[in-house]
Amino acid sequence: MKKSFYPLLIATFILSALSHYMHWGAEAEFVSAGLAILFAAGLLGKATESVAHYAGQRLGGFLNATFGNAAELIIAIFLIKEGLFDIVKASLTGAIIGNLLLVLGASALVGGLKFKEQKFNVHLAGQNASLMLLGIIALFIPAIFVKTEHISEHDTMKISIAVAAFLILAYAGWMMYSMFTHKDLLEDHVDTKADHGESPGWTKGMSVVVLVIATLMVAFISEWLVHTLDTFSARFGLSELFIGAFVVAIIGNAAEHSAAVMLALKNKIGAAVEIAVGSSLQIALFVAPVLVFVSLMFGNGMNLIFTTIELAAIGVSVFIATSISRDGATTWFEGMLLLIVYVILGVSFYYV
Amino acid sequence: MKKSFYPLLIATFILSALSHYMHWGAEAEFVSAGLAILFAAGLLGKATESVAHYAGQRLGGFLNATFGNAAELIIAIFLIKEGLFDIVKASLTGAIIGNLLLVLGASALVGGLKFKEQKFNVHLAGQNASLMLLGIIALFIPAIFVKTEHISEHDTMKISIAVAAFLILAYAGWMMYSMFTHKDLLEDHVDTKADHGESPGWTKGMSVVVLVIATLMVAFISEWLVHTLDTFSARFGLSELFIGAFVVAIIGNAAEHSAAVMLALKNKIGAAVEIAVGSSLQIALFVAPVLVFVSLMFGNGMNLIFTTIELAAIGVSVFIATSISRDGATTWFEGMLLLIVYVILGVSFYYV
Amino acid sequence: MKKSFYPLLIATFILSALSHYMHWGAEAEFVSAGLAILFAAGLLGKATESVAHYAGQRLGGFLNATFGNAAELIIAIFLIKEGLFDIVKASLTGAIIGNLLLVLGASALVGGLKFKEQKFNVHLAGQNASLMLLGIIALFIPAIFVKTEHISEHDTMKISIAVAAFLILAYAGWMMYSMFTHKDLLEDHVDTKADHGESPGWTKGMSVVVLVIATLMVAFISEWLVHTLDTFSARFGLSELFIGAFVVAIIGNAAEHSAAVMLALKNKIGAAVEIAVGSSLQIALFVAPVLVFVSLMFGNGMNLIFTTIELAAIGVSVFIATSISRDGATTWFEGMLLLIVYVILGVSFYYV
Repeated sequence: MKKSFYPLLIATFILSALSHYMHWGAEAEFVSAGLAILFAAGLLGKATESVAHYAGQRLGGFLNATFGNAAELIIAIFLIKEGLFDIVKASLTGAIIGNLLLVLGASALVGGLKFKEQKFNVHLAGQNASLMLLGIIALFIPAIFVKTEHISEHDTMKISIAVAAFLILAYAGWMMYSMFTHKDLLEDHVDTKADHGESPGWTKGMSVVVLVIATLMVAFISEWLVHTLDTFSARFGLSELFIGAFVVAIIGNAAEHSAAVMLALKNKIGAAVEIAVGSSLQIALFVAPVLVFVSLMFGNGMNLIFTTIELAAIGVSVFIATSISRDGATTWFEGMLLLIVYVILGVSFYYV
Repeated sequence: MKKSFYPLLIATFILSALSHYMHWGAEAEFVSAGLAILFAAGLLGKATESVAHYAGQRLGGFLNATFGNAAELIIAIFLIKEGLFDIVKASLTGAIIGNLLLVLGASALVGGLKFKEQKFNVHLAGQNASLMLLGIIALFIPAIFVKTEHISEHDTMKISIAVAAFLILAYAGWMMYSMFTHKDLLEDHVDTKADHGESPGWTKGMSVVVLVIATLMVAFISEWLVHTLDTFSARFGLSELFIGAFVVAIIGNAAEHSAAVMLALKNKIGAAVEIAVGSSLQIALFVAPVLVFVSLMFGNGMNLIFTTIELAAIGVSVFIATSISRDGATTWFEGMLLLIVYVILGVSFYYV
Repeated sequence: MKKSFYPLLIATFILSALSHYMHWGAEAEFVSAGLAILFAAGLLGKATESVAHYAGQRLGGFLNATFGNAAELIIAIFLIKEGLFDIVKASLTGAIIGNLLLVLGASALVGGLKFKEQKFNVHLAGQNASLMLLGIIALFIPAIFVKTEHISEHDTMKISIAVAAFLILAYAGWMMYSMFTHKDLLEDHVDTKADHGESPGWTKGMSVVVLVIATLMVAFISEWLVHTLDTFSARFGLSELFIGAFVVAIIGNAAEHSAAVMLALKNKIGAAVEIAVGSSLQIALFVAPVLVFVSLMFGNGMNLIFTTIELAAIGVSVFIATSISRDGATTWFEGMLLLIVYVILGVSFYYV
């Protein structure tokens, strides 16, 4: 963290709060909240890493997995409370494709311009591919059943709840598998990852306090951000879908983006791949199903049926990302291919 | 075979016969026939293995391939005679996904709880994946042409006949390839498989006699079973599709299920994979196309056009099964993933 | 080139010219032009190889890539001038699936009957698979957006132009990657390829002259051929789609077909794979997007939206071809599988 980080964090947070409570207009509120969340997400990421540093690799991995996507989860909860299910699904879609294409692509491209070929653990890549495939299947199967057969809304919700429960079960199984029963098989990789968590500079207690503060800040700013989206999308002629899938997703993942690219520049492409793919897996197998249960608590069930184009976008992202990472090596050209797919999706979503 | 097997085989067969001819009602007939077919399928499996033991590896493999799915084939022929094409296709779908997800998943999970990692021949896995892909393509291409273009029912039948003929050709080619021209490449694996056929305890002649008797028993029971399905599905509120794809398929594959799990517990995961994947291949490349020609003999052509959700179910099963088996090793977690996909499909089919 | 080649080249060209300008009727014109283009394409292929021989590997590869599909490109430009966009797309589809299934399948089958197993560079296979996947994604994404959302024709064209531009960028990146930055990684393979260009027998200057003449001949004949297609398809009861995807594609690729099979018979399956897959890549990533810009120059924009069955045909071809080539070895059985998929597609297209 540079010295200028904390003043900027506080300044953008106050600016965003002022623009929200004093109704400076949607544009000013959106821009200031967008800036503020960049810094707050950075603080959250740093706090998560620091807590993981003290809690050890096992628990650290779990905390990283649980808090890493906190921003997305909190934004989504506020959107669900407002009943904006379509934007929630669009932002989940955007988070998955953003991680698999933009984060992974930028890392591979930038790292590949410095190093000819960057290698990483092939074993984990295979496991990740199978898990990612489960994620697509779990989103795809209910959607194709509901779209081609006459399934009532009530039954659709029941299917969604069952699928969500089994996805969380799969995620819990993955935690057990990767942290307990087969920890040693993946240890090599975990080492690489722990490596990038250099000495955090906070004590154990301080790390937890910062984690709580950062989470609260992200929660507040994301609520302010959500309030502006409706007006913003109408005024700038952008569809809700485009905002959810690209604007919100890029903002919400800013911390991961910069971290992964930095790691790639240090020739730690394995850790960059882990951030990009691991984050996508968490969205598909944990965040999305948890949101189904959260929506039920608000008395307003959100099902897991994504639109055809969202499913197509997720599907092609998974296929190209697994095809490229399967050989355990990346080059600048492979990064460029991922970024091109991201741009093609962006252009297509823009015109919907 | 335990000592209690033969008395139970005979008792359940007689019970099923009585309930059928004395019209005890659909529930009693269904349950008794379901029980009886479990034992008869077990006898058929044992007789097939025993004949293969005497006939040697080459012919043994072919007989195993031809008789292994006899129960499914016979059930399907009776269904076709009654014109119940939709249930036939549902049960073929169920047999494929049941083998790839339930049989393979249970084997990997149960075996993986005992052994940390179970390895098998990677070479055959690749060949199986390509063959399985041909199977999906052959079902998918005619379906998408018929669903999106204006193709008459007559032309649809012609396409189905051509596709069926080429699938049987591919299956014949596979037999030649795996048993003659490239037998040595796959020999390592064939050994593993022959291994699980421990001394059968029957003479050569006796084995053939038992094979004939078992096939006849399966034929009778499956006809009784088919008669109950209509009433049964209406009375219990289960769709024909769910019964075909899950109830009939689980019953018809009972012998494979138990054999594969037993092999996995003996750390012979390769043989378990071979049973699960080999059986699916046979359904897609041999049983399904043969049924098209059988239907023509009954003067009532059944085409090869499966419903969208059946194709989706087969497609995702093949993708996840090949993704998991590609690395030539299975763990408990991979078994759990396969079973979760099976449950997600089951829940979705239940609500159709 | 056999001695009888040049007389036959000239005779068929004159015959085709006569039948066109003297209006001998569609059948005579089609047959004579079809014959003439076989020889002209052969001359074009030979001239391209010869120029590549003198220009060295780097530039040679580029020239081979640029002139190799000249026949397809020229035919397509004439079709676009006439506004026959559907036939253009059908012929692009046909060229891709013809190369991946017919050329690769025939090479693997014929070569596999002579040699038990034919091996080639695995590294390039992986790169090819990822590039091919980009090609499908770039065709699939706009199509699914346009087919499921309300996107105006104007916006569809804008999306097509953007996608086309990024595909050409990807192709340019591939050229840089494979010929400059990572040339050595793929060098082994390039050697194999250069190998089949035995001494051409023409001087440097002569080679360029022949190249220009051959290109002009192909241009003329293909224009005469295009004029007959409308009448021909109506008279013979063949759909435009079938003619575009199978008849035109087989004629236009005749040179590649024979070259690849010859190479396979010399146990140079790697070069055969390169011709088949490289040609498909070029169609998808270079020829198709260039045609979008060509159509704009004629003031009549052709978008990149292929029909559902064309996308399905391309998709399954890529999946089966990459599944079979992933292990870096081919056998007669794998060739047979590819040919069977080609026949299944042919039968399905015939009945549309």
